[in-house]
Amino acid sequence: MPQGSPKIVPVILAGGSGTRLWPASRDAFPKQFQPLTGDLSTYQETLRRVADPSLFDDPVVITSDAFRFFARRQAADIGVKATVVLEPARRDSAAAVAAAAAFAEKISPGSMVLALAADHVVLDDEVFRDAVRLGLKAAEAGKIVVFGLVPTEPKTAYGYIRPGAALGDNDDLCLVDAFVEKPNAETALDYLRQGFLWNSGNFLFKASQMLAEFGKYAPDIGAAASEAVDKASEDIGFVRLDPDSFSTARKTSIDYAVIEKTGEIAVVKGRFRWSDVGAWDAIWQVSEHDGEGNAVHGDGVVLASRDCLVHSQGILTTVIGAEGLLVVATPDAVMVAPREQAQAVKGLVDALKEGGRNEATLHRRDYRPWGYIEALVAGPRFAVKYMVVDPGGVLSLQLHQHRAEHWVVVNGTATIEIEGEAPRLLTINQSAYVPLGAKHRLSNRGKIPLELIEVQSGAYLGDDDIERIEDVYRRT
Amino acid sequence: MPQGSPKIVPVILAGGSGTRLWPASRDAFPKQFQPLTGDLSTYQETLRRVADPSLFDDPVVITSDAFRFFARRQAADIGVKATVVLEPARRDSAAAVAAAAAFAEKISPGSMVLALAADHVVLDDEVFRDAVRLGLKAAEAGKIVVFGLVPTEPKTAYGYIRPGAALGDNDDLCLVDAFVEKPNAETALDYLRQGFLWNSGNFLFKASQMLAEFGKYAPDIGAAASEAVDKASEDIGFVRLDPDSFSTARKTSIDYAVIEKTGEIAVVKGRFRWSDVGAWDAIWQVSEHDGEGNAVHGDGVVLASRDCLVHSQGILTTVIGAEGLLVVATPDAVMVAPREQAQAVKGLVDALKEGGRNEATLHRRDYRPWGYIEALVAGPRFAVKYMVVDPGGVLSLQLHQHRAEHWVVVNGTATIEIEGEAPRLLTINQSAYVPLGAKHRLSNRGKIPLELIEVQSGAYLGDDDIERIEDVYRRT
Repeated sequence: MPQGSPKIVPVILAGGSGTRLWPASRDAFPKQFQPLTGDLSTYQETLRRVADPSLFDDPVVITSDAFRFFARRQAADIGVKATVVLEPARRDSAAAVAAAAAFAEKISPGSMVLALAADHVVLDDEVFRDAVRLGLKAAEAGKIVVFGLVPTEPKTAYGYIRPGAALGDNDDLCLVDAFVEKPNAETALDYLRQGFLWNSGNFLFKASQMLAEFGKYAPDIGAAASEAVDKASEDIGFVRLDPDSFSTARKTSIDYAVIEKTGEIAVVKGRFRWSDVGAWDAIWQVSEHDGEGNAVHGDGVVLASRDCLVHSQGILTTVIGAEGLLVVATPDAVMVAPREQAQAVKGLVDALKEGGRNEATLHRRDYRPWGYIEALVAGPRFAVKYMVVDPGGVLSLQLHQHRAEHWVVVNGTATIEIEGEAPRLLTINQSAYVPLGAKHRLSNRGKIPLELIEVQSGAYLGDDDIERIEDVYRRT
Repeated sequence: MPQGSPKIVPVILAGGSGTRLWPASRDAFPKQFQPLTGDLSTYQETLRRVADPSLFDDPVVITSDAFRFFARRQAADIGVKATVVLEPARRDSAAAVAAAAAFAEKISPGSMVLALAADHVVLDDEVFRDAVRLGLKAAEAGKIVVFGLVPTEPKTAYGYIRPGAALGDNDDLCLVDAFVEKPNAETALDYLRQGFLWNSGNFLFKASQMLAEFGKYAPDIGAAASEAVDKASEDIGFVRLDPDSFSTARKTSIDYAVIEKTGEIAVVKGRFRWSDVGAWDAIWQVSEHDGEGNAVHGDGVVLASRDCLVHSQGILTTVIGAEGLLVVATPDAVMVAPREQAQAVKGLVDALKEGGRNEATLHRRDYRPWGYIEALVAGPRFAVKYMVVDPGGVLSLQLHQHRAEHWVVVNGTATIEIEGEAPRLLTINQSAYVPLGAKHRLSNRGKIPLELIEVQSGAYLGDDDIERIEDVYRRT
């Protein structure tokens, strides 16, 4: 990049939730935070992709309140220092991009922004960064640069871009003639013949330029987002956009609000392998395959089968003599469908939600700011939970109106406070009893994870029977 | 039945284990004791089928040591008083039938025996009993009566019978012209055209006659089985065949040993719907279907699919847009295969066994004479179990070399003995600690099931670290 240019601020848009990847992805713990193709989540892979300090500043993540601890923790787990900005409400991508631009301009005036979805897969990070470098000159000259992809097949699930004249001496950086909607199969084939590109929906731009474009084409959204950034507050390290301002932003996509209206647009022909992993067939496609085209994630065994995906989370999952089948197994839900039915998963999940099934939205393992809690077994008047408290994790000081709790430590050391008793340590093989109504708090001041079994006993065991008196994570 | 005839002693052969119905059926808890098509196991359905006191005596069950408590408990659960006879070793069906005949002759001289497999499905019990009544006259006249079935399709998985001349005025009772092996598809079709019958492998005979046939055609097996019955011992209500005698019996099938050799044979043309439910495709076939041919057992959701089987044990199992698929889900293993691949499940299980996978042979829930114990979660130095102790159940007085245990009662009342402490009651919401090395015993003297959570802690947590000092079930 040219000497003296500001670095690029990567802004990762991580507020979405996808049900097409159910049962792995659920509203409470959506796909961008799930390890869907390898050990890392697509959110983490995206952070890694922009971790080159010669090109990029520390990233900004825009997400919702519900996902703030995932966003922070998963960044920390891979050693990335991310600023996590919280949208007080979902207002679609236009408001999110406007806030990204305003926030980047505020923390680093004159900066460039690379706005990336947190749930895309890119298989060639260096080729991706080459595309960013190529787009940079155009962005510095005031273009909004959109990343197009040279298509590998006539997909009907993507929008397309008709590239125009080359912008300089590199044919891979062009003007944009038109953005076109998702085509049918025949039209898609025609688009491929004409050299159209897939529209990835990722952008590179100068923050001030994007704000100027909002000023021209969607001033209401630009103003709402800018004010939400100006009035943002700090909340235990998170940046909380001002709810009153942000909630006035119109709900629309960045494409409709700005991209398809402005003339200041350019496209890079991306030559990296890319997928928005919108459904399980796309996961199969971007996964590593064996000689018969099968992709196996986790504890799976595939016999005499072809082109199948097995995605297993902790449950032995076997497939015999099948072809083109998607099999996804989690501890509480299994989904089986032919690859060409992958889009129908959304309808299934909608039906399950209508039927009031918890499995549609919640996982058995429930992540909390201090670690996680997993339901093991339950009866009419009891529930057994497995809890893992991270080093430094502190549960709220709380009490329950309807239940008593037994704790048995199975690994690590807990510091426990129970009303009427002196605070004490509880270590492996020790147990404690928390009577109904007693204020109590559990924390891990040790260096290794604290694992314990909690046996709850009482007439009502709902999660809403927690009266929080104090909470370091400000959930009171 | 004719006035004064002895009642028929039903002998249920329940010693087998089937891996083709994995992961529901596993060696440790095989298919005959599993509720595969409804609320009852095929073993229980078989007991029900012969529970008509106008025709049948109390049943005798022949099974192995490993399954004795299933056999007793599942009979008791449906109010059937069964005598459970234990084979000290698996010696195939000839020895089992010889022992059945000898045992029936011993407890009820002159009796008739109806020898039935415990893992067959019959959909029309009254039609079945009509077939028994029809065969009875021939059996009383000294015939071994085999139950044939009028075929509904050219199955290649069954052996066939070529019926001969009618034995009386009812054409459905005939002599046997020949027994033929499992045919290929073309031959099977030919057999159907010629009026052959499926061979169900179930028999009706006078006990003394069967012993006489053994005397003629397989005297060694007859002698071994008779001696094993003569020297049988009683063991907490079970009849244990003499191991030394029984183990000398040659391993062969009753068909090879007697049925295909004797001339004293007749066949009833059974007109009841029958299946040996040898594999999951057969389970699908005998199950109730929705309008699209799908059969769903347990917590299953099937969308836009045809002719699928979903068999779920406590895990939401969903299928979208599939045709002819078998999907079986248990808490620790899932199996997916097209219907025509049902026979391949055995090979999969063999491979899993070779790979040392516990899921091939053991269920997460482990049945014991006093109830069951279920693994919930485990780490390197801990394991959490959910235990249910039936009213009257008493665990052995035991100690562990390598682990301490915490108990938390979540339902019912336990009587606990821990070395060095006075015996006491432990009820809901109370807990106890069993130090490593301390002798201890847990029992349920109450009227409702005792449910408790056991947290084990120690360097070695294998099931073989149980030193049994006393045991009411004589497992020491």
